[in-house]
Amino acid sequence: MPILITGGRIITATDDYTADIYCEGESITRIEPCIDPATLPAETECIDAGGRLIFPGFIDPHVHIHLPFMGTNACDDYETASMAALAGGTTTLIEMICPGPTDEPMAAFEEWNNKAAPLAAVDYSFHMSVVRFDPLAREQLRQIATERGIPSFKVFLAYKGALDLSDEDLFAMLTMAKELGIIVTAHCENAEMIDAMQQRLLAEGKTGPEWHEPSRPTAVEADGLHHLAAMAELTGAHIYAVHTSCEPAVRAALDARLRGVNIWIEAVLPHLVLDKTYAEQAEFEGAKFVMSPPLRDKRHQAVLWGALAGRTISTIGTDHAPFNFHGQKDMGTDTFTKIPNGIPSIQERPALIYTHGVRTGRIDLHTFVDACSTQAARIFGMYPRKGDIRVGSDADLVIWDPDYKGTLSVKTSHSAIDYNGFEGWPIQGRASSVLVSGEVQARDGEFVGTIGRGRLIRREPTHF
Amino acid sequence: MPILITGGRIITATDDYTADIYCEGESITRIEPCIDPATLPAETECIDAGGRLIFPGFIDPHVHIHLPFMGTNACDDYETASMAALAGGTTTLIEMICPGPTDEPMAAFEEWNNKAAPLAAVDYSFHMSVVRFDPLAREQLRQIATERGIPSFKVFLAYKGALDLSDEDLFAMLTMAKELGIIVTAHCENAEMIDAMQQRLLAEGKTGPEWHEPSRPTAVEADGLHHLAAMAELTGAHIYAVHTSCEPAVRAALDARLRGVNIWIEAVLPHLVLDKTYAEQAEFEGAKFVMSPPLRDKRHQAVLWGALAGRTISTIGTDHAPFNFHGQKDMGTDTFTKIPNGIPSIQERPALIYTHGVRTGRIDLHTFVDACSTQAARIFGMYPRKGDIRVGSDADLVIWDPDYKGTLSVKTSHSAIDYNGFEGWPIQGRASSVLVSGEVQARDGEFVGTIGRGRLIRREPTHF
Amino acid sequence: MPILITGGRIITATDDYTADIYCEGESITRIEPCIDPATLPAETECIDAGGRLIFPGFIDPHVHIHLPFMGTNACDDYETASMAALAGGTTTLIEMICPGPTDEPMAAFEEWNNKAAPLAAVDYSFHMSVVRFDPLAREQLRQIATERGIPSFKVFLAYKGALDLSDEDLFAMLTMAKELGIIVTAHCENAEMIDAMQQRLLAEGKTGPEWHEPSRPTAVEADGLHHLAAMAELTGAHIYAVHTSCEPAVRAALDARLRGVNIWIEAVLPHLVLDKTYAEQAEFEGAKFVMSPPLRDKRHQAVLWGALAGRTISTIGTDHAPFNFHGQKDMGTDTFTKIPNGIPSIQERPALIYTHGVRTGRIDLHTFVDACSTQAARIFGMYPRKGDIRVGSDADLVIWDPDYKGTLSVKTSHSAIDYNGFEGWPIQGRASSVLVSGEVQARDGEFVGTIGRGRLIRREPTHF
Amino acid sequence: MPILITGGRIITATDDYTADIYCEGESITRIEPCIDPATLPAETECIDAGGRLIFPGFIDPHVHIHLPFMGTNACDDYETASMAALAGGTTTLIEMICPGPTDEPMAAFEEWNNKAAPLAAVDYSFHMSVVRFDPLAREQLRQIATERGIPSFKVFLAYKGALDLSDEDLFAMLTMAKELGIIVTAHCENAEMIDAMQQRLLAEGKTGPEWHEPSRPTAVEADGLHHLAAMAELTGAHIYAVHTSCEPAVRAALDARLRGVNIWIEAVLPHLVLDKTYAEQAEFEGAKFVMSPPLRDKRHQAVLWGALAGRTISTIGTDHAPFNFHGQKDMGTDTFTKIPNGIPSIQERPALIYTHGVRTGRIDLHTFVDACSTQAARIFGMYPRKGDIRVGSDADLVIWDPDYKGTLSVKTSHSAIDYNGFEGWPIQGRASSVLVSGEVQARDGEFVGTIGRGRLIRREPTHF
Repeated sequence: MPILITGGRIITATDDYTADIYCEGESITRIEPCIDPATLPAETECIDAGGRLIFPGFIDPHVHIHLPFMGTNACDDYETASMAALAGGTTTLIEMICPGPTDEPMAAFEEWNNKAAPLAAVDYSFHMSVVRFDPLAREQLRQIATERGIPSFKVFLAYKGALDLSDEDLFAMLTMAKELGIIVTAHCENAEMIDAMQQRLLAEGKTGPEWHEPSRPTAVEADGLHHLAAMAELTGAHIYAVHTSCEPAVRAALDARLRGVNIWIEAVLPHLVLDKTYAEQAEFEGAKFVMSPPLRDKRHQAVLWGALAGRTISTIGTDHAPFNFHGQKDMGTDTFTKIPNGIPSIQERPALIYTHGVRTGRIDLHTFVDACSTQAARIFGMYPRKGDIRVGSDADLVIWDPDYKGTLSVKTSHSAIDYNGFEGWPIQGRASSVLVSGEVQARDGEFVGTIGRGRLIRREPTHF
Repeated sequence: MPILITGGRIITATDDYTADIYCEGESITRIEPCIDPATLPAETECIDAGGRLIFPGFIDPHVHIHLPFMGTNACDDYETASMAALAGGTTTLIEMICPGPTDEPMAAFEEWNNKAAPLAAVDYSFHMSVVRFDPLAREQLRQIATERGIPSFKVFLAYKGALDLSDEDLFAMLTMAKELGIIVTAHCENAEMIDAMQQRLLAEGKTGPEWHEPSRPTAVEADGLHHLAAMAELTGAHIYAVHTSCEPAVRAALDARLRGVNIWIEAVLPHLVLDKTYAEQAEFEGAKFVMSPPLRDKRHQAVLWGALAGRTISTIGTDHAPFNFHGQKDMGTDTFTKIPNGIPSIQERPALIYTHGVRTGRIDLHTFVDACSTQAARIFGMYPRKGDIRVGSDADLVIWDPDYKGTLSVKTSHSAIDYNGFEGWPIQGRASSVLVSGEVQARDGEFVGTIGRGRLIRREPTHF
Repeated sequence: MPILITGGRIITATDDYTADIYCEGESITRIEPCIDPATLPAETECIDAGGRLIFPGFIDPHVHIHLPFMGTNACDDYETASMAALAGGTTTLIEMICPGPTDEPMAAFEEWNNKAAPLAAVDYSFHMSVVRFDPLAREQLRQIATERGIPSFKVFLAYKGALDLSDEDLFAMLTMAKELGIIVTAHCENAEMIDAMQQRLLAEGKTGPEWHEPSRPTAVEADGLHHLAAMAELTGAHIYAVHTSCEPAVRAALDARLRGVNIWIEAVLPHLVLDKTYAEQAEFEGAKFVMSPPLRDKRHQAVLWGALAGRTISTIGTDHAPFNFHGQKDMGTDTFTKIPNGIPSIQERPALIYTHGVRTGRIDLHTFVDACSTQAARIFGMYPRKGDIRVGSDADLVIWDPDYKGTLSVKTSHSAIDYNGFEGWPIQGRASSVLVSGEVQARDGEFVGTIGRGRLIRREPTHF
Repeated sequence: MPILITGGRIITATDDYTADIYCEGESITRIEPCIDPATLPAETECIDAGGRLIFPGFIDPHVHIHLPFMGTNACDDYETASMAALAGGTTTLIEMICPGPTDEPMAAFEEWNNKAAPLAAVDYSFHMSVVRFDPLAREQLRQIATERGIPSFKVFLAYKGALDLSDEDLFAMLTMAKELGIIVTAHCENAEMIDAMQQRLLAEGKTGPEWHEPSRPTAVEADGLHHLAAMAELTGAHIYAVHTSCEPAVRAALDARLRGVNIWIEAVLPHLVLDKTYAEQAEFEGAKFVMSPPLRDKRHQAVLWGALAGRTISTIGTDHAPFNFHGQKDMGTDTFTKIPNGIPSIQERPALIYTHGVRTGRIDLHTFVDACSTQAARIFGMYPRKGDIRVGSDADLVIWDPDYKGTLSVKTSHSAIDYNGFEGWPIQGRASSVLVSGEVQARDGEFVGTIGRGRLIRREPTHF
């Protein structure tokens, strides 16, 4: 059904103007100061966006949905994750494919895609984790990148003896990435340091979630960043540091940039609004706030916001990874190293960034759109199909009520998880209507769309 | 006369696609995959852009044309400057208004505008230099910014006892700028240090142009940057550091950004492709390469290019300031402090950045357009009228022949100056047609336009 | 009366051994594993130092005693200051001579010296503040440095329109200092920024002591450091940054060092153990904790201790400047800018550094001695007469009881001031006996010496 | 035979005075303004040191003598190395014990010590390389450190699959070092990066010595430094970065210091006076200048000198490792990776540092002594037995002729190597007499001592 949106104030990474938008099929087909409904098909649905802002659909470049972990699995599937994402205004996800160390890459790709295809209501793509780099894996990774439309890899420096590559393989992989124009996203914490620190802390009887941060302090993350950047300098590969949490890591990335390294930086929602005191709460409550890199000292928040305002940090994701407090997080009651990692915010990200970033004046509306949508589209090869409002782009749109005031709660979140890390937090502003490829999928926080309608977005390599 | 441009590959800061462009009046009115000439007025001029790139008209955010100096004047007027700019592909200039220390700001604005209006073939605006900040000046500056459409100031930390403000006035001026949404561009060198160094060097008999750089080493520029940034941190004003020439200055700006300071960085053409050995040439030849900040050690070039690639540096200007070698530069034969400053490149900038940046792979085409056009439009409040190719924008377009090979020379430059700092330098790529507000003004390096057709572009304050 | 100290563990900046020390006249004349008292004059006083540490007398390179301020004067004279210093273990002071802007330097030197000579029980010297640099001042400063034995200057970047020099004079002064081998100590805060910030805050009704820090944030201090260091780079002068309070300032100094600047860094006691929350206490209590640079966020303490441990910071002083809470600090009840600056610790410094530095393991005993005594002697030209324990050195010795546990209080402090910023703080370790030039001047926190016995120590220029 | 040295100007890390020195047995027994020869044994040898400087014997904390490599061995033994060291003024060496990856540590210690004991004329100690860390090795390393007096380890991050430790073992080793008070010296280059770069360059036909530096650029060394420092931060171990060659590495170390890491930095002679253009010389001449880290761009020299002047760099060593140009270096004619590493300077270090450091004013005499002698003694637990001139210290003394002018050459060097990297370089100043433990071992560049007289200096752990 065609849709006409009238009178909204259109905000993109670069523009701010008022116009009508007409969507037909899956795309935006007209943007004009005033579109006469008489020129449109009779069945056209009209949405009055007077007093509202219209953003391009938000993109979350860093989520986990299908996530096997120690015999359990993260508690969302693509149905609940889509509902949550759309309720908040996010219309495209990029999920991490996380195979085990001996899995074949192609099989993993098929497994992840098969989980997504029948249940997705958002559009989606993947970052392909590289956990082995033997000739077979190499060949399949090449196919996945170039034939299946997944030209972005993910590498862990963090998970010792399991998911991390040797430096030799890392060098070879980055060399291949450069050749194929693939961008390599990276989790920059040194695995063996953390492993040794965990063993030491546990041996000292330090077993609670408050010891998660001390087991991986900022020096560990900065070390990982320096290492990755040096590798990129030698190979020429383009890299993207996910969930950068602290000033030393940001500075490491900037140093690399001044040496000519092609590096992009991602922040994620939790590090922008939470700090490590949350993970220090008593009665195991802190376990809700265990993720990696960990929540940091509060002072790092200001650095991340400053870096966003100056476009030094390009994107904001979530690292959504939902594990229930009861039955999952509590696997780590006796030892923090067994607490599944994750502070979910797939639904909350846009409203929290709007509330804590835009309304406080830390970032402007354009930076908000750029960091939450446009840059993800550009860096990962989906622009201008995604990440912008223009004729020809996918009709992924968020009609935003800037005056809405509400409160976050597990009761109103669509994720299957049993807690909300932001329970009771006030927000101002929310998505009142959310369109994906020309169809309204969410209204006022409720999912009103079609499960299974989401599409795998094929992307082209651009990082040569 | 309407113009149809067919088959060109359109390159903007964000886009890369092939389409036809139709311009009518002063604007772009249609961009479509294929525009049928039969639908257009009979008088439409057709330009075949097959095999060519189409860029938004380049903007030079930092030029001097009317520039009184020690009893002489820079040797271009708006006619020669326009011809040179257009021949190279630059369609909009922002000139520095440089009043004397006791001049009234409004009179200076009128003087500069009166020089431009009758002779400009490019569109133009101004940065208003603030050299006094008494109540009268304050009131006139407010009027110039808000009523005359000039919401950008320029301040010197560099010219002692003449054009620089006291720290007290600087603080007050930045406070007013923040209030009015004005961005403050700044020349960040400490005036008194330089003055003392000059006296010392001259007293030691060090009088040649090779002593210009030692009289203002990188520490002086970095000190200025730190000072300006601290001032901006206290006042909240948005600042723009012009002609940043070296790593310590870039780092000072980045440090400020991580503290939340709203700072943008400009590089200028000479620092990207020349180094201080040029100013050390014998027989006073070095005088051709005297500008401030001075040409630096070659290693700083790599830092500037790296910062451009990572969008840490936003813009590339020229600091065009043309003084003849014979009769002007030679005022400083006996003492380098009397050499008029300037290494003109108003015509050469696009081709040199294309040759040394794009073709070497240091920056991609989008960064080229962003730095040479789009960011200047956005930062200085002319976007999307300028700096982009879209329906509704001014029809300022550069049709670029990427395969052209040629050589730079004073013989083919349109500036009135008697030398070319890049004499004999090979270039690849040049503007084959240049449109300003819908009219072809230059073809294949020759001016074919209309003197006086250029317009003062009124801008709105955006830096709140 | 000769003194024999037996069985103490001698700790210097470099050594740690057990020996007997014999002092005759004003010097140490013998240090031997075991000195037979039978070989000594009968009247020799014996001190059993078994179980005690012996340090060279501590030197405080940064104090104010005679300090006129807004019609009042700091409340110590050399009698009370000497008693306090000696009770804590400090045997030599370097006081700042602080003339008014029009005073002649030589007259100021005489004034300060006349205050000290009759009342000092410690040895003392001065740093000569340079607040004017006209030909007369220049000549007198040269005499003071070279003929009166005061080869260290002090310069303020901080006090606008009063005690600060223009950049022109600063450059000339540093040039003279380099020529004469004089080290220039500097208070690195930018005067005009602070003045503007104070006016703004007061205009906003922000009048309490908690606004002192926001009126001069870390950026202001770092800016001052960068400026001074750039000046030193140009002139070659040796500089010493007093009371460096925060990470950005330390980094600025380190950057300068890597560029070859001869810069030393001083920390002062308050910044090492206090933070800005002290100045935020209610009921004007915060006024007790107003000094400049202000107390900072607590995180800067760790940086200062780390820099001390690595000898990046050379010295620890006090910036002792005692103003009574009642009758002096309360001049600023209505406006924080009128609160006299100072957090006195002339007596408390050694015990607090020992307690918070040595016993916590942040610094070792050698670093303690180096920072609190030896480096001050070396940098300011009193070594090895002062700052070391060796035959021929002045018999300035501290016999330290490492096991003493006590509590600081205004009741046990000898300064004339009416409060103690460390009231109730526990300490471990104190000076049990303190010798100055061979005479016991303090025992167990009590002064037992001779008023007026202190000497002006003439120093030679060494900073060529 | 007792020795009396009269009239010399004694220069230590802290002192500068003129006195007579009397040495009896192996120690300095008297230092007095004027020693009456009549009070001395008749057989006392008198040395007139009028007009000369007297330094404590220089210590080289980083040499290789017994160095098996690819079936050959470095070409010095302790006889030639001692002769060379002594001729230059170096009286104590610390050699690296370099076992193979499967060798038992104790056997390696015995092997190295057996090479040294019969032939050494200098005093010596070792750094014990840790190339395996299984339980057997762990136990033997503990014994070597605590029972054999070798409390300093060496670790390579650099030699892939051969001599480097896994991060897990590195963490465990540092933990043990902290517990035992052992300092860990480290070669900070990442092994796998270099290996990959070498393979790539060779595959591209880049086989000459000029490719050695590009195979291990500054980013690789800085990465190693960051990694080591992060490890030290986690474990608390004290670390010492050997042969730091460039600004990024120095900055990495300084960053660590401000975070509280106990890190010391060593420079070596070649990086202070040579640059990478030496390794780029034609006809394989560059092979003479291949060492690791490689010679760098010339600009890094100034940073190293600045860091020395500010005592940020503590020591200057040589990394002496002599391989003949003919028969050894030429193993790498076809491929630079097979060129044995080393730019020998065991004899030349003092004269070159004096010539290029002291005489140019880059460092003063005290810093010269501190960096070339005293700090090595202090950091490695030999102070004050070594590294100072005082009663009770070993009579290791250098009588220095500051006015000597000469030229370096392979002809006058005592090392067995067949070339001199500094052939024809002018020097000013040299050791005219060199005493080791009270005996003259060298005069005017000639060895006049006793082979086999050198002693293994047992050291105690101090780095708790």
